[in-house]
Amino acid sequence: MLTYSFADIGSESLYHHLYQCVKSDILSGILPAGTKLPSKRSFAKNLGVSNITVENAYAQLRAEGYVCSVPKKGFYVSEVSGHILPVDAVSQSCTRQDVPRREYVADFATNCVDPEEFPFSVWSKLLRETLLNSHQELLEMSPWGGIRKLRRAIVSHLKAFRGMDVSAEQIIVGAGTEYLYGLLIQLLGRDKVYAVENPGYHKIAQIYESNDVAFRFVAVGKAGMDIGELEEAGADVAHISPSHHFPTGIVTPIGKRYELLGWANREEGRYIIEDDYDSEFRLAGKPIPTLQSIDRTERVIYMNTFTKSLAPTIRISYMVLPRHLLQEFEERLFFYSCTVSNFEQYTLARFIEDGYFEKHINRMRTHYRRIRDELMECIRRSPLASCCRISEEDAGLHFLLCIETSLSDQELLQNAGRAGIRLSAMAQYYAGLSEDAPAHTFVINYSGLAVGEIPHIVELLSSCILETSL
Amino acid sequence: MLTYSFADIGSESLYHHLYQCVKSDILSGILPAGTKLPSKRSFAKNLGVSNITVENAYAQLRAEGYVCSVPKKGFYVSEVSGHILPVDAVSQSCTRQDVPRREYVADFATNCVDPEEFPFSVWSKLLRETLLNSHQELLEMSPWGGIRKLRRAIVSHLKAFRGMDVSAEQIIVGAGTEYLYGLLIQLLGRDKVYAVENPGYHKIAQIYESNDVAFRFVAVGKAGMDIGELEEAGADVAHISPSHHFPTGIVTPIGKRYELLGWANREEGRYIIEDDYDSEFRLAGKPIPTLQSIDRTERVIYMNTFTKSLAPTIRISYMVLPRHLLQEFEERLFFYSCTVSNFEQYTLARFIEDGYFEKHINRMRTHYRRIRDELMECIRRSPLASCCRISEEDAGLHFLLCIETSLSDQELLQNAGRAGIRLSAMAQYYAGLSEDAPAHTFVINYSGLAVGEIPHIVELLSSCILETSL
Repeated sequence: MLTYSFADIGSESLYHHLYQCVKSDILSGILPAGTKLPSKRSFAKNLGVSNITVENAYAQLRAEGYVCSVPKKGFYVSEVSGHILPVDAVSQSCTRQDVPRREYVADFATNCVDPEEFPFSVWSKLLRETLLNSHQELLEMSPWGGIRKLRRAIVSHLKAFRGMDVSAEQIIVGAGTEYLYGLLIQLLGRDKVYAVENPGYHKIAQIYESNDVAFRFVAVGKAGMDIGELEEAGADVAHISPSHHFPTGIVTPIGKRYELLGWANREEGRYIIEDDYDSEFRLAGKPIPTLQSIDRTERVIYMNTFTKSLAPTIRISYMVLPRHLLQEFEERLFFYSCTVSNFEQYTLARFIEDGYFEKHINRMRTHYRRIRDELMECIRRSPLASCCRISEEDAGLHFLLCIETSLSDQELLQNAGRAGIRLSAMAQYYAGLSEDAPAHTFVINYSGLAVGEIPHIVELLSSCILETSL
Repeated sequence: MLTYSFADIGSESLYHHLYQCVKSDILSGILPAGTKLPSKRSFAKNLGVSNITVENAYAQLRAEGYVCSVPKKGFYVSEVSGHILPVDAVSQSCTRQDVPRREYVADFATNCVDPEEFPFSVWSKLLRETLLNSHQELLEMSPWGGIRKLRRAIVSHLKAFRGMDVSAEQIIVGAGTEYLYGLLIQLLGRDKVYAVENPGYHKIAQIYESNDVAFRFVAVGKAGMDIGELEEAGADVAHISPSHHFPTGIVTPIGKRYELLGWANREEGRYIIEDDYDSEFRLAGKPIPTLQSIDRTERVIYMNTFTKSLAPTIRISYMVLPRHLLQEFEERLFFYSCTVSNFEQYTLARFIEDGYFEKHINRMRTHYRRIRDELMECIRRSPLASCCRISEEDAGLHFLLCIETSLSDQELLQNAGRAGIRLSAMAQYYAGLSEDAPAHTFVINYSGLAVGEIPHIVELLSSCILETSL
């Protein structure tokens, strides 16, 4: 019998909570298609809620197609979709909503940060000092691009770590890259066609879609985004992550980078959005200059975020605008206030200026390298070794695990889900039903693992994959 | 000779800084139309910069129409516009950009907060405790609507202060109301027609314009927004501030509130955005229930912000969605992360829960009442009394000063500007060249004044108004 907790659901209605819990388990594969749900009466009794609560939850699930009712038999989980659901949708419904997060033994589908690793004491000290010493500045409206001190600190960081030569006025600070994408749409124009990577993060396409702008999926091959497809798509703006493509891990080679700049220069009004998140944590491969730093014609808008390099819940990202866009930005979007609180802007500025950010990155690289090495070593020594292949490319905090198996991706995901392991398949990062998507290839985000747990996790993973695949 | 400081301009170019300074002084009336600017050579010498810096700044100002060049004579400040510039534009160019803020003796054009009044020690204590005790929660992704604890605290606050009966799941927390407006456009639809108040804050119309959605200015009369005009405009969504209209100070009476709800119910898909900022600080008038609380048909989206009630640089606002919109919001916008950092969400939740927010509001009401009383008393005792009329209505932190004078609004603004007093005229809050705009009526935002300075400020104000108006 399914068991869900109704403690701590606040003012959410019981039926909605139950609906969310069941939906989440269907989406994540815990409840595979065909599973019979408990009868309303016994489920209600078991959960300690009224029959009407279960009835309403089932009705909602049925209306949305998650379950179907067979007369005189009961409710069954539907085949949710012809293909596996995109991993963002799964991820969101498991972690972002008000549903208590399911405790996985291991979650390879999201990039988590171990709370132990956040520099709480330093952050706390800097925050305290800021609050003590900067009363006036803390309450003065930040310029729309962010406070000067933070933008100057970012300039120095970009100079030291990415060899970029930019000025503070080019930096625009905002509460997350999602927010900055929205600003860029307003700046570059809703009449432009945006190209997004396929495979890639679904969220980027979702944001363009939600803003009613035209976007096209363009294939990312072994050497980055396909220029021919980009031209064919009629794109004006290419939204890419040349330094670290997710999930393939591919780093766009320098030759292709010049081709991309060439594409941007062939027509007036073309731009490249260079999304450089996670670049701090590449553990393998040689550093390659950013597109921004080799762009002599001001076609590249560079983006990065502290939500990946510091903490996902500190919402500070930034972009570097080409100089010629600054005046347009000011004239058209001057009325927007900066979305990040001064308190955190000043604290982060100190954190960077005083060298803590650099230390933090170095420490985290060592930390992540240790996890990766242990995980790979455990896989190599496990029975999995004989039927899987690890492909790392120059990826950031994940690698790809390709498994020889007769099972479908969905079956593997469900097996893993039942064992308490949350996996995501490469195919889930492709738009629609792509035939290009490699089968049996799983994205292993390892950043949230604890080293000590790895042997046990690999054992579990191994047994739930091998159990039925041999 | 004009003098500007070039210290602390960071990496901004010299010419751009100079351009900004001069532009700002032109917009604020410090440099009125017809003023001759210094010659390039002498200005450069005086400022200690190169001739080319001044030349570039003048060229930019000329290209944008702020100055004109008369052959063999030099550069003169242009008549910037047929009418006075909207105050938002002035305000922005004076405070939001990277130009060091000009020190006014008194700034009546913006609602400032005296840094002395922010509860730094309590905030600091709560922040420290949060950082010490909540490591895990601080790094766990916030649900897209904001963390539960904060949303529950907001629910209790709304219950206690506004008599509203809502649930935590209806609350959506975001980094400022501007950001939330953008989300609402995505939720309600870009094909809708939005009605905005005239007069009103220009920023609201600017946001709709920047998002390429249709909007209409609808007159706000003595009793709130005109329903006939609203119908005529073909509006689907009315964006209003019924509890405290800026700048008129009018509170929409209860009868008109029901008419507005009636309007919203006459057609499918109509909504009212009820912007309730500053409602905590109404010093006069009886409390009137929010539109949201008398809405039985889920047509009202309520909005409020802590940027007004706590500090302008803490970017936390929220909206209350009608229940039937929750599912749509979740389905269509689930992929957006909450834009406010967990650190501040948890701290604010404690601040409200532990009663500090209530205390803060009470203290600030007393503080503002003292300023208002002193300011009104000083005006009454000054020579101004014989030629001006104060109209307060039930305004929040401002009142209207109507002056009998033969001078134009622009002349009055410039006189005041030269005396170091920043004023804004009612006419500046009207869209376009409105004939409805009352002349010689000035908006007196008093929240940023210090009580002790008020006699001197009134003396100054009085002399610069009377100097030429008698």
